[in-house]
Amino acid sequence: MKRVVIIGSGNVATSLAHGLSRHCCVAQIYSRTLSHARALADAIGCPDATDDLKKLVPDADVYILAVSDDAIAGVISAVPDNGALWVHTSGSKPIDLFKGRRARYGVLWPMQSFSRQVVTALDEVHFFAEASDEAALGDLMALGHLISRHVVEADSAKRRQLHVASVFSCNFANHMWTLAAEVLDEAGLPFEAMKPLIHTTVDKLDRLAPAQSQTGPAIRHDLKVIASHQAMLDDDKRDIYDLITQSIMNRNPLDDNAQ
Amino acid sequence: MKRVVIIGSGNVATSLAHGLSRHCCVAQIYSRTLSHARALADAIGCPDATDDLKKLVPDADVYILAVSDDAIAGVISAVPDNGALWVHTSGSKPIDLFKGRRARYGVLWPMQSFSRQVVTALDEVHFFAEASDEAALGDLMALGHLISRHVVEADSAKRRQLHVASVFSCNFANHMWTLAAEVLDEAGLPFEAMKPLIHTTVDKLDRLAPAQSQTGPAIRHDLKVIASHQAMLDDDKRDIYDLITQSIMNRNPLDDNAQ
Repeated sequence: MKRVVIIGSGNVATSLAHGLSRHCCVAQIYSRTLSHARALADAIGCPDATDDLKKLVPDADVYILAVSDDAIAGVISAVPDNGALWVHTSGSKPIDLFKGRRARYGVLWPMQSFSRQVVTALDEVHFFAEASDEAALGDLMALGHLISRHVVEADSAKRRQLHVASVFSCNFANHMWTLAAEVLDEAGLPFEAMKPLIHTTVDKLDRLAPAQSQTGPAIRHDLKVIASHQAMLDDDKRDIYDLITQSIMNRNPLDDNAQ
Repeated sequence: MKRVVIIGSGNVATSLAHGLSRHCCVAQIYSRTLSHARALADAIGCPDATDDLKKLVPDADVYILAVSDDAIAGVISAVPDNGALWVHTSGSKPIDLFKGRRARYGVLWPMQSFSRQVVTALDEVHFFAEASDEAALGDLMALGHLISRHVVEADSAKRRQLHVASVFSCNFANHMWTLAAEVLDEAGLPFEAMKPLIHTTVDKLDRLAPAQSQTGPAIRHDLKVIASHQAMLDDDKRDIYDLITQSIMNRNPLDDNAQ
């Protein structure tokens, strides 16, 4: 059974520790704050917690750096190589942070937004793996498959595309809801009213690709409704409304819809 | 117990018929296609189905026109007034379709996207009501409250704002997912990878307003990441990326975030 050390006790570390502890031996939790390391170790039944990088157990198989992006390099340089597999979990940091400092290393990035309060089930989370060499990649993919059904190889370029996609999928979708909330607020109406509709829209993704489940005035090229909406919006929202409407119309020329 | 006639057998009519049949007497279902009327009537235990507007039962309390937007006016003019409450369920058609043709009338618009295949639970769906007079509004709100916890008065202007909000909430959020799917497709990656993240983003709406749960490079004013994303996108996606990023940044000046 693989022995894993988890460096970090934050959002990603918490869900990883819980997921991994069911399938391998989490030998130690490190955190800058001992009480945090101890709390996470206790929660998963791990015997060893530390706040001292010099006291990392020396003989684990895998060391997972689930710390903030800016802290990764510091941990790598503070600890000498021991020949184990060293892994960070960041989508935006390159694998090269390890280069010249570790012999076997990789990146294992979970495509999910974690919080410390909630232990997230990892089975359906997609993990993206990159490693220093084929053997390390094999070990890393095997580790990922212990906790998730979806482990895919992805180099830095692919991770960047995944990151852009997540910005559209989550950050920008969420901003659409912010704009909707503003429109409703002006009318004295609660954003709550949108939630059943939002849930239905998301549920459709289980059956259809988003391009296939698009609805609304833009895909119908309903210029009368579009004009009435444009007339109601402030500049900021109208610019966004126009651009997205045009983008939907461009992808769905009227000829395609005419029956 | 109120006696209700449902005119229509499509998406909205189906869920309304099921919801109403538990709390009042659905006396008749009308559809242009008799077999559709019959199927829906049978499904809810309603004794009477017809495809003839001349055979509408004359003495119901409420007549609900859950037909397509463009069919509403035709039904109204084909049937003489009988003094009952007449209601259409369209968000985009004005209440004035009834003016001069009915004495007591209104609009009861459910903010949900329905499909004929799925009977949608209405309890949490927000209904927006408008009526010809106070007494009719009282009757209409009471009818709505039989099937939903959320029935709110909303005139045509408010319905228009709700409609714009639903375009942002659903149509535009869905288009963000289309754009994400395109980015992923270019990298040979499946849109599936986004789903756990999308579900987490939607779940957050139960705890926080969307403006409060915004994350990502735009709200962090992370210009380096933003520039690297811009460099990867085609013109269409980059224009949208830029405009939404700017809209998020404008609402979250850096001073607000600095601690």
